[in-house]
Amino acid sequence: MKLMNSIQEIQSYVAEEKKVGRTVGFVPTMGYLHEGHLSLIERAKNESDLVVVSIFVNPLQFGPNEDFDRYPRDLDRDKKLAEEAGADVLFVPETQEMYPDESVVTVSVNKRVDALCGETRVGHFDGVATVLTKLFHIVSPDFAYFGLKDAQQVAVVQGLVDDFNFPVKVIGCETKRESDGLAMSSRNVYLTEKERKEAVHLSQSLLKAKKWLLDGDSGETEQKMINYLEEHTSGSVEYCKILSYPELLPPTPDTNKLIVAVAVKFSKARLIDNVILDPILLKQGSEEETCSVH
Amino acid sequence: MKLMNSIQEIQSYVAEEKKVGRTVGFVPTMGYLHEGHLSLIERAKNESDLVVVSIFVNPLQFGPNEDFDRYPRDLDRDKKLAEEAGADVLFVPETQEMYPDESVVTVSVNKRVDALCGETRVGHFDGVATVLTKLFHIVSPDFAYFGLKDAQQVAVVQGLVDDFNFPVKVIGCETKRESDGLAMSSRNVYLTEKERKEAVHLSQSLLKAKKWLLDGDSGETEQKMINYLEEHTSGSVEYCKILSYPELLPPTPDTNKLIVAVAVKFSKARLIDNVILDPILLKQGSEEETCSVH
Repeated sequence: MKLMNSIQEIQSYVAEEKKVGRTVGFVPTMGYLHEGHLSLIERAKNESDLVVVSIFVNPLQFGPNEDFDRYPRDLDRDKKLAEEAGADVLFVPETQEMYPDESVVTVSVNKRVDALCGETRVGHFDGVATVLTKLFHIVSPDFAYFGLKDAQQVAVVQGLVDDFNFPVKVIGCETKRESDGLAMSSRNVYLTEKERKEAVHLSQSLLKAKKWLLDGDSGETEQKMINYLEEHTSGSVEYCKILSYPELLPPTPDTNKLIVAVAVKFSKARLIDNVILDPILLKQGSEEETCSVH
Repeated sequence: MKLMNSIQEIQSYVAEEKKVGRTVGFVPTMGYLHEGHLSLIERAKNESDLVVVSIFVNPLQFGPNEDFDRYPRDLDRDKKLAEEAGADVLFVPETQEMYPDESVVTVSVNKRVDALCGETRVGHFDGVATVLTKLFHIVSPDFAYFGLKDAQQVAVVQGLVDDFNFPVKVIGCETKRESDGLAMSSRNVYLTEKERKEAVHLSQSLLKAKKWLLDGDSGETEQKMINYLEEHTSGSVEYCKILSYPELLPPTPDTNKLIVAVAVKFSKARLIDNVILDPILLKQGSEEETCSVH
């Protein structure tokens, strides 16, 4: 595996590889890799000739009161894990390399950000879309892999690629989970022992939501989820929402895909989880096909 | 010359050409081609294997009270001119092809737009940067050619390419002029006969500004230009400005390049012109090297 820090170096390297017809699979990350990331790298390895993984804790997507400074970092461990999973190039730029000057241009995300994490994390998705625009030009991927734990991010990235005509295929991959159902996240390390036990109730609330949706409407289900999470965790519930996907608007009878999404703030970690459902299959009660939790 | 209307068609066509190692030169236009555009196409022909010209009157870069509907269009004439100048592909998408849905993302230009045309044409450069981001992904150019008559546009496009790491070289080309010095523009057809005669004073004011700058400061020169244009034309002077280039900030002793820029509103046409100067050469009085007017 090659380690690269310079934009020019990786841009030229990939350009040469593409000239001889190799396809590029890209897994952008903020590092502190877990099995979720590794499964993306493994999938990229199966589908592309050259797998590029980036590690960049992007300051632009953190708010002033968020955890940029204390976001967990362990490059030595990440190198080993990325290489084992099949990465050919690990791109780890410094902040100065990515943002040498104050920006003349940035990407603004105008839709799909008024709900869920976008509502409280103002500017977060502008930062995500801006850094991905840069990374897509640096890495020139044919395929880009994202975990569906950040389903809103996948919705925004799909909008970015569609609206800007990027010649990139976005591949959203199923959330990897711990044995008890907790969605894997680099931020899980922030949980106290007690909170770690309670955190199982995020995915539990999603499973219950499916059942409640058969009996009631979205509004009722959202309230039942809030009650459930308040009862079973010490965290504060930021949202429990049922929306259309990927538009993230209130569902209508024509909605093709629903997302049920939760965010809970624990003492030092804000956790999110979601499940994407097909409303028709839901009505038919075909549980196996409607839920990627477990 | 191939005429293409579909994004998918041109994107695949260019991808195949690039696979066999051909370089792509790109001239984005809004059509109604004049010698300025043709000189860009000819230059692209000299420097690239495949020359793509686009014609798209981009609604996103027109304000609500601007001339989108009555912007001059003549596709049959443009086809002939583009082919004669050396275009290999003419890309003419419909608005629906470029903007099929309401946009999830757009590009925001945060610098280089507080002065000159950006001050009155609010959102104009966001629209330019957004459509060029799309077109760069559709055409995959190695080189992109722009006329320096729109020097602010070139400054913004250079910022776009630098900040977003586009693998594209931006080439700003000298303004083409009529025999009396009037900068060529598709909008010159809007001028009345009387205004057409007066319009020569835009380039004249730039030549005079060079002399005035040797005797006084930027502020004085700007005021002299305003007085000159008000005396010699019936138009209303929108701005006469001397700024650093490409930053478009008030000049300091360290400024490497100056732009002297004017905008005058006639009854049905708003005309712009500029000259880019090297302050050191200006002090040395080396006129030949400091002014591209004439």
